[in-house]
Amino acid sequence: MLRTHTCGELRPEHIGQTVTLCGWVQRTRDKGAILWIDLRDRYGLTQIALEEGVEAENVRETARNLGREFVLSVTGKVVERHSKNDKIPTGSIEIRPTELTILNPAKLPPFLIEDETDGGDDLRMKYRYLDLRRTPVRNNLMLRHKMAQAVRRYLDGQEFIEVETPVLIKSTPEGARDFVVPSRMNPGEFYALPQSPQTFKQLLMVSGFDRYFQIVKCFRDEDLRADRQPEFTQIDCEMAFVTQEDILNTFEGLTRYLFKEIKGLDFPTVPRMTYADAMRRFGNDKPDTRFAMEFVELTDIVKGQGFPVFDNAGLVVGINASTCAHFTRKQLDELTDFVKRPQIGATGLIYARVEAGGMVKSSVDKFYSQEELQRWKAAFHANEGDLLLIIAGEPNKARKAMSELRLEMGQRLGLRNKEDFSPLWVVDFPLLEYSEEENRYFAMHHPFTSPKPEDLALLDSPDTIGQVRANAYDLVINGVEVGGGSIRIHDRAVQARMFGLLGFSEEEAKAQFGFLLDAFEYGAPPHGGIAFGFDRLCSLFGGADSIRDFIAFPKNNSGRDVMIDSPSPISGAQLKELSIATAVVAK
Amino acid sequence: MLRTHTCGELRPEHIGQTVTLCGWVQRTRDKGAILWIDLRDRYGLTQIALEEGVEAENVRETARNLGREFVLSVTGKVVERHSKNDKIPTGSIEIRPTELTILNPAKLPPFLIEDETDGGDDLRMKYRYLDLRRTPVRNNLMLRHKMAQAVRRYLDGQEFIEVETPVLIKSTPEGARDFVVPSRMNPGEFYALPQSPQTFKQLLMVSGFDRYFQIVKCFRDEDLRADRQPEFTQIDCEMAFVTQEDILNTFEGLTRYLFKEIKGLDFPTVPRMTYADAMRRFGNDKPDTRFAMEFVELTDIVKGQGFPVFDNAGLVVGINASTCAHFTRKQLDELTDFVKRPQIGATGLIYARVEAGGMVKSSVDKFYSQEELQRWKAAFHANEGDLLLIIAGEPNKARKAMSELRLEMGQRLGLRNKEDFSPLWVVDFPLLEYSEEENRYFAMHHPFTSPKPEDLALLDSPDTIGQVRANAYDLVINGVEVGGGSIRIHDRAVQARMFGLLGFSEEEAKAQFGFLLDAFEYGAPPHGGIAFGFDRLCSLFGGADSIRDFIAFPKNNSGRDVMIDSPSPISGAQLKELSIATAVVAK
Repeated sequence: MLRTHTCGELRPEHIGQTVTLCGWVQRTRDKGAILWIDLRDRYGLTQIALEEGVEAENVRETARNLGREFVLSVTGKVVERHSKNDKIPTGSIEIRPTELTILNPAKLPPFLIEDETDGGDDLRMKYRYLDLRRTPVRNNLMLRHKMAQAVRRYLDGQEFIEVETPVLIKSTPEGARDFVVPSRMNPGEFYALPQSPQTFKQLLMVSGFDRYFQIVKCFRDEDLRADRQPEFTQIDCEMAFVTQEDILNTFEGLTRYLFKEIKGLDFPTVPRMTYADAMRRFGNDKPDTRFAMEFVELTDIVKGQGFPVFDNAGLVVGINASTCAHFTRKQLDELTDFVKRPQIGATGLIYARVEAGGMVKSSVDKFYSQEELQRWKAAFHANEGDLLLIIAGEPNKARKAMSELRLEMGQRLGLRNKEDFSPLWVVDFPLLEYSEEENRYFAMHHPFTSPKPEDLALLDSPDTIGQVRANAYDLVINGVEVGGGSIRIHDRAVQARMFGLLGFSEEEAKAQFGFLLDAFEYGAPPHGGIAFGFDRLCSLFGGADSIRDFIAFPKNNSGRDVMIDSPSPISGAQLKELSIATAVVAK
Repeated sequence: MLRTHTCGELRPEHIGQTVTLCGWVQRTRDKGAILWIDLRDRYGLTQIALEEGVEAENVRETARNLGREFVLSVTGKVVERHSKNDKIPTGSIEIRPTELTILNPAKLPPFLIEDETDGGDDLRMKYRYLDLRRTPVRNNLMLRHKMAQAVRRYLDGQEFIEVETPVLIKSTPEGARDFVVPSRMNPGEFYALPQSPQTFKQLLMVSGFDRYFQIVKCFRDEDLRADRQPEFTQIDCEMAFVTQEDILNTFEGLTRYLFKEIKGLDFPTVPRMTYADAMRRFGNDKPDTRFAMEFVELTDIVKGQGFPVFDNAGLVVGINASTCAHFTRKQLDELTDFVKRPQIGATGLIYARVEAGGMVKSSVDKFYSQEELQRWKAAFHANEGDLLLIIAGEPNKARKAMSELRLEMGQRLGLRNKEDFSPLWVVDFPLLEYSEEENRYFAMHHPFTSPKPEDLALLDSPDTIGQVRANAYDLVINGVEVGGGSIRIHDRAVQARMFGLLGFSEEEAKAQFGFLLDAFEYGAPPHGGIAFGFDRLCSLFGGADSIRDFIAFPKNNSGRDVMIDSPSPISGAQLKELSIATAVVAK
């Protein structure tokens, strides 16, 4: 190596040794008689000191002309520091250099390479290689590495085998939009990039692999939002000869292992909640259970008192914002505005305060007597000083709005601490959901998910088909869906029927998934699995909201990599070889 | 789990226990009074026995109707076997079932699910999920998993960080043909799939990641040969602040670790050989060093005796096929035919035998006296019973042909045992190679490889440019190039000059690699790396010639996945969304 030690390595026991360090100039301070350089690498920061009359003048001259981010090699003696810095592990020593070589100079970076930078998002992305020098960003990627290593270690220990499945596969109409790849050798034909290795992992179960996993890139050509990338990474898993219970236990084990290894946290059993309960209690299939503030349904209590908003509502639902009776009119107006935003969609917010002495004071006092308000209080198990927040409307809409309000209140009350973790299994998802737009059912999870055997008869009638529950489950942590899966269909007839329910003709099903239907005829075992969104899991463990800084080279919201300027036009010769033409004029 | 044990788990200590196994019917034998089932899973094989009058008749009835590859659940008591089978670990016990449930029936597989199958390549690929049930194929993929785990464990222990680089990148004209992906959001523009993460790993060094690795899918749209796949996997690595020596030592460490962990083999230091020596001694930049049979150059010794084939040749080169003097005329004719094949291209083969008593008898005796032949013998260090094989011609062609003949002789003499491993570093590759076809120089490794500093001056003259050596190296094992890398350029001016030598205009270089040239101006450290062909490494460790059976779902020589029938046409709506049209009529 060009160095004997890293910039994070030297301690008092090295004093007296001659060492060579390599790294980047974090900063220099020139006090005339003494000149200091902070030299940085991935491992830490080491102070270099050059004193007038002690270090050679030519070395001092080189040091005086250094800029930020110059790459140096420094050889010198380790000495004890006069004024120690106990904030960094190398703070007791410094280097007195006899040699100082500029391995590469650097132009002034377009933004500060510090924990807090002055660079905006666009600039940071264009110069991502500089942004990645910043400690918080590098730490995110090191966390990601550690998580991936831990996942593999755990699953390997459980006899899972990592198998690489192909990236060049086949386009299918179900699910999100595919990225496609024209085939040069098969003109007019295309590969697709996988949205997940779903069918391949099922085939591996048919092959007897028994326990499969893969940390794998997946691709979806969907319009991008802040927290969505066209390429993302899954921890993809599948097991044979299992029930739902086995899968939940196995991956609860993985989750607990990760929390222990990465965060040093011990978790008891992960609680479970049905989809129906999650919707009823939190209005959300991924409830943030770091705090309670559960829904209280008031419909029966509040109706019939002449208040039209409640009388005409399908559902009246509230939460008890404990100890918030002190909220000002302004704060309550803010909350009202919040729930009335178009994306949240409530028509209004009713509130009631439990005052000193237990009297309830509401925004609808003219419709409700104190006696009736006391029944509200009882329903909410409310105490002096509590604030009750109530929304009324069509049940699904009211629940959705109340769920958003609950999260907002949790945020305002500091109940959503990023260092608290509350994992939860949500189980018994519906098998199908109806799309009014397309006038047909869609698979809520995917077309390979098995209905619960006890609900199979409900598939026979159009009236009950929406009530069929699936052996499907999500792992939710802090209101974020970090993983989801199901027990799969392994019977050809059931799978064919499912394709039928989803509107596939027999020919279409055969053309798209014939290989899977065939495979089910050659001895397919019962099997099921799960996939975790690895980018999101990393950001959750890293205490961040966005996945972007847990990806080394992310794309922006237009799907562009602004650093390498991609996508970009390709040559006419390339197009011709691929037997395609662009339908727009290339830039 | 649906089972209490696997089919590979039960031993005499389990006798008396009631267990449940799940698996596939490997075979059944019905001897009337006793009926046996061999039940198979990934972990092994367990015998199930059903005796008349002992096991219930309804269970025996189910058993009588089982076919191969039916999926079963079997519950019963573990008993000692009468006739033990010491070839399998479960051979001391069998199960006497009280319950036998068919979890899924199976159609008769189109080929035998046995170690040796009767299925041809095409059939095996179409039903790859059945082929993967065969023990040798499954073992290959389990070996691959173990190798990947070991690679990650070793590199993690050496402070390497695995960083995922993007799959949707940018097409570049240098190197092999790119697969491209039309961008819906950026009409007329395309992503490319990476041929390697080369520039990204270099940027990670600029970012200070110091030690990077990734086991990563790469893509090349090239015409396929038996041992080449459009998507393949690399172990991709890069280090900063290193010399070539550091890289060789680090990855020699990885190689030794893998041999120890996977094969239980201890290796001394991996020898090193320059490219020039490899070409001179073996006629090949990836010599198979499991055996010697080194080249002997005879040009000076044999010229001027009136034999035109030698007199007109640029090079006369031979090998000593030790102890092969007994080769018959027929065998020698075969070897002559071998070297005269068009792909080998020699014009003929001259041979000489060292007979009992030391006399040399050659196929060109009329041109050479015994005294002269004795000089040949001395040059070859030949002894009684040796066979000397000689080829003459243009030096590069003669070396290439002799290299093939040497490998053929090694094969015939059993010197290329798949369980012997001979690793070798080949170093000091030329920086550039000239293409007569395109009338320009190409980078022998890639455009980012640094010239040896001591050869830099040779770049100045067109006469010497081809002599410039690079800090480039390959790891060769048994004549297979399993890895290659180089110390990279980290100086903007040198990189710009290299692009110029390769025929890029300044604008082209900037358009394609501007981000890298820019990055070199913001403090790029000296760095270098290596990439291993993971598919090939696995097949080498698995003792196989082809990589195909170390890939779960490979493509055929037309780039097709015949199992899923991909690539395939996509819909007009998809094409329209992507702003492309196919230039052929879709099937």
